Amino acid sequence: MSKLRLSRLLRLQSVFYNKSEKRLAAAIKHMVGSKPFNLKLYKLAIKHASVANESINGLKISNERLEYLGDAILGAVVAEFLFIKFPYRDEGFLTETRSRMVNREALNQIAIKIGLSKIIEKEFKGKNLSAHKSIFGDTLEALVGAVYLDRGYHFCKKFILKRIIIHFDVDGIITTTTNFKSKVIEWSQKESKEVDFEMLSVSGNSRFKEFHVQITINGEILADGKGATKKKAEQDASKNACEKLKLDI
Amino acid sequence: MSKLRLSRLLRLQSVFYNKSEKRLAAAIKHMVGSKPFNLKLYKLAIKHASVANESINGLKISNERLEYLGDAILGAVVAEFLFIKFPYRDEGFLTETRSRMVNREALNQIAIKIGLSKIIEKEFKGKNLSAHKSIFGDTLEALVGAVYLDRGYHFCKKFILKRIIIHFDVDGIITTTTNFKSKVIEWSQKESKEVDFEMLSVSGNSRFKEFHVQITINGEILADGKGATKKKAEQDASKNACEKLKLDI
Repeated sequence: MSKLRLSRLLRLQSVFYNKSEKRLAAAIKHMVGSKPFNLKLYKLAIKHASVANESINGLKISNERLEYLGDAILGAVVAEFLFIKFPYRDEGFLTETRSRMVNREALNQIAIKIGLSKIIEKEFKGKNLSAHKSIFGDTLEALVGAVYLDRGYHFCKKFILKRIIIHFDVDGIITTTTNFKSKVIEWSQKESKEVDFEMLSVSGNSRFKEFHVQITINGEILADGKGATKKKAEQDASKNACEKLKLDI
Repeated sequence: MSKLRLSRLLRLQSVFYNKSEKRLAAAIKHMVGSKPFNLKLYKLAIKHASVANESINGLKISNERLEYLGDAILGAVVAEFLFIKFPYRDEGFLTETRSRMVNREALNQIAIKIGLSKIIEKEFKGKNLSAHKSIFGDTLEALVGAVYLDRGYHFCKKFILKRIIIHFDVDGIITTTTNFKSKVIEWSQKESKEVDFEMLSVSGNSRFKEFHVQITINGEILADGKGATKKKAEQDASKNACEKLKLDI
């Protein structure tokens, strides 16, 4: 508790903010939902390694440590979010869905949605951003780390739930996460039927391949599917099989 | 807050505990430092998939979901622990050290140290445990998940710091984490010298190989090293180089 009160005192520093600090504090308030206690943390969070020019004890002062911390906190909060949202799904599904949510591209998109990208662009002042494809997502994780250190776990969790996770298309992600193949296998075991995944053909050249897979149940053809890898073709065939078998997915 | 009070009411259930529940509650108190609020969570935490025999909505009732959650919480707490402990180390070091701490073998050992393995052995009642090498570590993660759901983040964090992380030989882990090769490269860049890693020989057969690597600075031999992989040999040579160059590690 005393730590929190100390943090609140830090907010009094805001009377000494210069113009750019005032602008950053306002932007943080807009994104995070509350004024920062310790603005330094947020200044660090937007400091990408490529614009970092200070060092201390041989360590470049950049947002990479905050990114490491934010990644772990984000992972924990998303893990719990999915744990609660899907009480009857196994840990394989939860793990897979989580890794699809906290991947770099998804985080990049969210950083743009919440306006973090604008702040980063300002920080880069005309330098070429395109060389750093993941900079938005990386900075979003660093922001999570800053919020965690500044405001503690509960505040940070609320921030992640209400202002980050809300932007995920969880249902869209799940459609591609469901392991249709294991659904088909589970079904076959329950029904004591023999299921076979048979590769019919591989076409294409060394750069683009197409696999064609067929599923038989007790020797009878049930469904087929295609894809750029064997796994994807099996998944596609299994999805068709699930539909034919009217399995809940 | 009201959630916490409700949890406390759950503790009143303890008057109805049967003999084995009483024993479990006492063991949890011993391991976690406080009596459980909701004993059901801990019963679930020690239920390995191989001894699970109930299902609900097609999901086997086992500790795997709790393990998934506990893994994420443990990861976050260890991440912050290292972030604070090593203020001047970069995120590569922190990430690598963390993955060495929360690996299966290290967690197995800690589960044995805190006595969790005894509870698991009782649960298995003479069944063969050796088929499940990671069962102790898995269950430790599930226990973390149970503590988190039962008592919240702050309590769980304290539990992890005081009763799990304390058993890690962090200094021992770090010695093997330090990336000596990048230390040598950093030094050479700072000193504007040309560093070369040269493979001198590979000896051995298909099962056991030994690589021999030599480091030269501006063409002069500085140090050499050996190892079972090219990377290990380079690491060994770099360690010797760091010693000769008297670099801080």
